[in-house]
Amino acid sequence: MGGQLDPAVAAVRVAVRKALQDVRPGGRVLVACSGGADSLALAAAAAFVAPRRGLTAGAVVVDHGLQAGSAERSEQVGATLRALGLAPVEVVAVAVGRAGGPEAAARDARYAALAAAAAAYEAEAVLLGHTLDDQAETVLLRLARGSGARSLAGMAARGGPAGPGGLWRRPLLGVPRATTRAACAALGLEPWEDPHNADPAYARVRVRRDALPALEQALGPGVAEALARTARLLRDDADALDAWAERELPALTGTDGSLDVDALAQLPAGVRRRCLRSAALAAGCPGTDLFAVHVDALDALVVDWHGQGPVQLPGRVSARRRCGRLDLEAGQGKS
Amino acid sequence: MGGQLDPAVAAVRVAVRKALQDVRPGGRVLVACSGGADSLALAAAAAFVAPRRGLTAGAVVVDHGLQAGSAERSEQVGATLRALGLAPVEVVAVAVGRAGGPEAAARDARYAALAAAAAAYEAEAVLLGHTLDDQAETVLLRLARGSGARSLAGMAARGGPAGPGGLWRRPLLGVPRATTRAACAALGLEPWEDPHNADPAYARVRVRRDALPALEQALGPGVAEALARTARLLRDDADALDAWAERELPALTGTDGSLDVDALAQLPAGVRRRCLRSAALAAGCPGTDLFAVHVDALDALVVDWHGQGPVQLPGRVSARRRCGRLDLEAGQGKS
Repeated sequence: MGGQLDPAVAAVRVAVRKALQDVRPGGRVLVACSGGADSLALAAAAAFVAPRRGLTAGAVVVDHGLQAGSAERSEQVGATLRALGLAPVEVVAVAVGRAGGPEAAARDARYAALAAAAAAYEAEAVLLGHTLDDQAETVLLRLARGSGARSLAGMAARGGPAGPGGLWRRPLLGVPRATTRAACAALGLEPWEDPHNADPAYARVRVRRDALPALEQALGPGVAEALARTARLLRDDADALDAWAERELPALTGTDGSLDVDALAQLPAGVRRRCLRSAALAAGCPGTDLFAVHVDALDALVVDWHGQGPVQLPGRVSARRRCGRLDLEAGQGKS
Repeated sequence: MGGQLDPAVAAVRVAVRKALQDVRPGGRVLVACSGGADSLALAAAAAFVAPRRGLTAGAVVVDHGLQAGSAERSEQVGATLRALGLAPVEVVAVAVGRAGGPEAAARDARYAALAAAAAAYEAEAVLLGHTLDDQAETVLLRLARGSGARSLAGMAARGGPAGPGGLWRRPLLGVPRATTRAACAALGLEPWEDPHNADPAYARVRVRRDALPALEQALGPGVAEALARTARLLRDDADALDAWAERELPALTGTDGSLDVDALAQLPAGVRRRCLRSAALAAGCPGTDLFAVHVDALDALVVDWHGQGPVQLPGRVSARRRCGRLDLEAGQGKS
């Protein structure tokens, strides 16, 4: 340190300052830190920025207990964070279940622990270390589903329940991973390399290691930046179209919950599909199982009607067209 | 042939039948055929389907004159097409310019020749052989730009000026390349392999040969289908949002062409960006040079205003905020 400020350190601080802009002086924020380069650089920036804004910055280290020595390592990360000046720093051991696969289960346990810590410390924001490269990987992973703008919108810069600005904040979505590594190096911080991040059993690792470099090779540099920009643009699109669909739904929907087919048919396809998806969710379809192919089948009842029979949807919901109305009924279809 | 109909041949015919559904009996359609597997399978299907629908199907072979022997090869393709029963079959030599690079120049010359043939023969539709794989490649190529839904929407199944259904039709956007190859094999047709299709100097070839296989390896099978489905969904989204923006613009726009900043700020970001883009185009920005970064700068004048100076846009257009209005002026900025 001393002398010139390292540009990587400066870039991370600028991003954190922007993310905390709306937190009122005296407020507390927490940094979620795994000890990896991204969240370590984030924590260091928060420790610098927060006191200068009159805020308190603490940190939470979640010990997933999935690797030998994880408890000791988590305590070491905690000690590093305390040395950076963060307080309080809490190390939380969680029990990872199995629901939805190992990655989803670990994520659910992690977010639950972070939300509990935020509640306990009355934190107004929890800062998460996802970078531009994480966002690009997320977009490519979601591309494989082919499920539209909301899915390709990737991770939100802000989200979650608490406060108008959102509890979860991702200040580094515009910052490349190379910058967080450079920031750690400039600050003399030694990040922990999670062996999971090199295990090709994970699709995300394959995307990072093989698919993104192949895309850069084919398309030229800047693919990760382009994917992150795409995510941001498509998030705005999805927000606008969801709002449009929500405005249309009340007038389309009868007291029995059925939809007016003629009115649906007059909507642009992108809005109509969102109305149909909303109606399917309201009828009890689980969002995780409702795919583009199901919405296609519903849409065909509206715009490609030739007397076809009912459409079976996930969650035992069945949809049929009758007398100019689309009925969605729970408990009728195959599970 | 004889006996069981080959499923690949059947799949291409079904796709062609659907694309010609709205052409009135007695009408004429043309197939654009390079002699490659995609357009050859398309031509064979059109030769089968058109007479059964009371239509006349002809073909156009465009000789770009870019390779030694292209004139002879084009005549051979023409002879094959005549043998399939297509009439008229015209072989057109074009002069390929240089504007926009070699691929764009060849495409411009090709579409101009096809449009001229369509006019000369009063054709109601020109069938183009782009497949699902071409669409997937297009989406990946456009991803590198990071320029939003309209760009990722890829190629339209129908487009162009003539008639309500569009002059240009791409019946095979849902048909994989493997199917067109299988259809040619089943019909005993020998497609021509364009050496350009294996030349890694072209970004599209690199995407096909390297990037898409790497994505399939990382994400699992079905990536091309997912990309094509993504294109279709995002096309619908872009259509709906463009329509929304066009509806808002008249009320936002003053008699001097300036925009009402407060009214803009109240629109959802996805709609506001489209309004700003439209206004920039109307002020004289060339669409080919207007990128997301320019619209970002315009948007900052609206929603992140801190007294910043004018924004310079391509085509010597300059934008400034003044007294609650956004002025876009031609001939003021740097070219």
